[in-house]
Amino acid sequence: MPRSKAASAPASSGHVLELIRSGEAATRTEIGRATGLSRPAVALRVTELLRHGLVSEDRAAPSQGGRPPARLEFDAAGGVVLAAALGVSHSQAAVCDLSGRLLAGDSGSPELEYGPRAALPWLLETWQRLLEECGRGTGDVCGSGIGLPGTVEFATGRAETPPVLADWGGVDIASLVAEWFPAPVLIDNDVNVMALGEHRAVHPGVGDLLFVKVSTGIGAGIVAGGELLRGSLGAAGEIGHIPVRDGDGTPCRCGGTDCLEAVAAGPALLARMNARDRRAGGVAELAALAHEGDSAAAALVRQAGRRLGEVLAGAVNLLNPEVIVLGGLLDRAHDHLVAGVREVVFQRSIPLATRQLRVVGNRSGEEAGLRGAAAMALEHVLAPEAVNARIAARR
Amino acid sequence: MPRSKAASAPASSGHVLELIRSGEAATRTEIGRATGLSRPAVALRVTELLRHGLVSEDRAAPSQGGRPPARLEFDAAGGVVLAAALGVSHSQAAVCDLSGRLLAGDSGSPELEYGPRAALPWLLETWQRLLEECGRGTGDVCGSGIGLPGTVEFATGRAETPPVLADWGGVDIASLVAEWFPAPVLIDNDVNVMALGEHRAVHPGVGDLLFVKVSTGIGAGIVAGGELLRGSLGAAGEIGHIPVRDGDGTPCRCGGTDCLEAVAAGPALLARMNARDRRAGGVAELAALAHEGDSAAAALVRQAGRRLGEVLAGAVNLLNPEVIVLGGLLDRAHDHLVAGVREVVFQRSIPLATRQLRVVGNRSGEEAGLRGAAAMALEHVLAPEAVNARIAARR
Repeated sequence: MPRSKAASAPASSGHVLELIRSGEAATRTEIGRATGLSRPAVALRVTELLRHGLVSEDRAAPSQGGRPPARLEFDAAGGVVLAAALGVSHSQAAVCDLSGRLLAGDSGSPELEYGPRAALPWLLETWQRLLEECGRGTGDVCGSGIGLPGTVEFATGRAETPPVLADWGGVDIASLVAEWFPAPVLIDNDVNVMALGEHRAVHPGVGDLLFVKVSTGIGAGIVAGGELLRGSLGAAGEIGHIPVRDGDGTPCRCGGTDCLEAVAAGPALLARMNARDRRAGGVAELAALAHEGDSAAAALVRQAGRRLGEVLAGAVNLLNPEVIVLGGLLDRAHDHLVAGVREVVFQRSIPLATRQLRVVGNRSGEEAGLRGAAAMALEHVLAPEAVNARIAARR
Repeated sequence: MPRSKAASAPASSGHVLELIRSGEAATRTEIGRATGLSRPAVALRVTELLRHGLVSEDRAAPSQGGRPPARLEFDAAGGVVLAAALGVSHSQAAVCDLSGRLLAGDSGSPELEYGPRAALPWLLETWQRLLEECGRGTGDVCGSGIGLPGTVEFATGRAETPPVLADWGGVDIASLVAEWFPAPVLIDNDVNVMALGEHRAVHPGVGDLLFVKVSTGIGAGIVAGGELLRGSLGAAGEIGHIPVRDGDGTPCRCGGTDCLEAVAAGPALLARMNARDRRAGGVAELAALAHEGDSAAAALVRQAGRRLGEVLAGAVNLLNPEVIVLGGLLDRAHDHLVAGVREVVFQRSIPLATRQLRVVGNRSGEEAGLRGAAAMALEHVLAPEAVNARIAARR
């Protein structure tokens, strides 16, 4: 009845790499002790890892008398991953080492609304240029991670007719990227990627976290048990089209009425603000006004927080997260947004679900997407099975 | 940045057992090949597993010339787990072998409302008697699993002041059980346990499943990526207190208004039914009436399904499950409940989230809780780390 989680080769090179990366074993003797492998078997695996540049050797370890054992260290310079956070108005691209450290990065404004064939050349050329800047080549690329503004069928890497980016629907982005950089390509929606980035960078010890992005739309990324929860087709986290209570019939672009997005996302706030005195040119400006103490802007953001809180109160009952992180274009008005969310969530969720709940603003800021894209690629390419496959392919 | 998942001893006895249980390796040679372990190391681990009765040996394998290699098989008779599904009006207890097969079972009506010190003796004595019936002793018990009607802080095994069972709040049930049966005790709320049982028995290949129990209250159990999602304090799945849209202010026992439970759970339906012509003596009877074609009862159940569907539409957007299973006291009226849920969920959830969604009735029936409790205990006690610890303790 219980399903097996056994990997086919529990003491493979990939697992030995994991022992070294995690600090559980640093010498050949320690690896032997931890795995039960014979000395020749340990030596074979370590040699493979050394040859592929994933591990480096250091003989300077303090001696206990006699020749000191060579200490093995994960070599983050043994390869690179490419990371990208694509956005409708602003996109970022970077090259990272195998620890996720940014080696080179750039941003630009490729026109995503004209489809991937217009925007992908910018990304591929930027990555190519950044690789050259850090003296790396295509052969060093172990994988790429991309965050895209729209729902993505994660297993296939195809965008699912995102309303903002209709022309991306069904396009096999992963294959297009892999033509240039032949290595695994991981694509997920921007909010999932931001959730992963914020979790790994700011809340690594938290098991259950909900990241909510309030921007042109509203979406959530769910971290459950430390891992992204994507759902059966990668559509998890689509909270923008959950209706709010006691709505007045506000139409939503999805065809429904009173969707959270229609009453609390950027455009709705902006329309309400500008119906009064037309002072904010964009959502970021509205957020800045709220931050600077403009009472009308602050009241709008706080009310949006309350509306968001209604939907999040249900999500808290359903998921019992430890942390809710709010991010997106309202970043600068976090205080007001967080206050509105707290007001409703702590009133409407069941007591046990809110006992240890924290509602906070996004702390990794603009980098969340890029960090998350790098983490998504890294966690895939450094998984034992992937390491074994790479070693086998180049043996 | 990526977190390590490496166990400390990837090729331990526990892992070897997993290879044998999953069918990945059946002979000492295959174990050596799969793990990279030396022949003496494989022999040592197999001997330990044989000595602890977790594995049995069979020399009847077809020969390829020469002496046939001994085939190793997981021995489900190498121990037992105790399982219990406690309910307010009806409780079940069983002894299962290590494959989850029921060896002996019984049910009763211990009075849960008077607290665990009144109800636990029934459970402990029943387990003891069932153990004797199948010729086993306390020393054969590898672990126990209990489903309890109320929120449970899973990590500690303490019940969280369940509204139905106030006297159970904070009681350390696990310790009380472990005094009689000294082995790991796992306790979770009844809906989580039913979700696990239904998943393992009926939908083992499904990654993301939502099990909803409509009974005196309404709760959900979430299976994400094949595992139970419990949330940070074990409160996940509490959908009964999410308010429905356009409510008329119906008060709920939690102090809120228009909670799903207050408008769509058994008592609400019964009250509405009996306000008309007082025909149904209980929720099960109301469900039976609906099943038999009573139009008033069927309409009530269907309307409850629609209300449930409103909340589930949000849960579908949030979690993108592949299957929603409806269970509980309305079991016999599943057709009507399922129809109501489908009506609203397929109208209100986003298209990608419902593309492959199935809404079905509970198929493992009354056994779901007992099967789930056994699975919860088994998956814990057969995990490699737990097997290693048990072997080390008795070495």
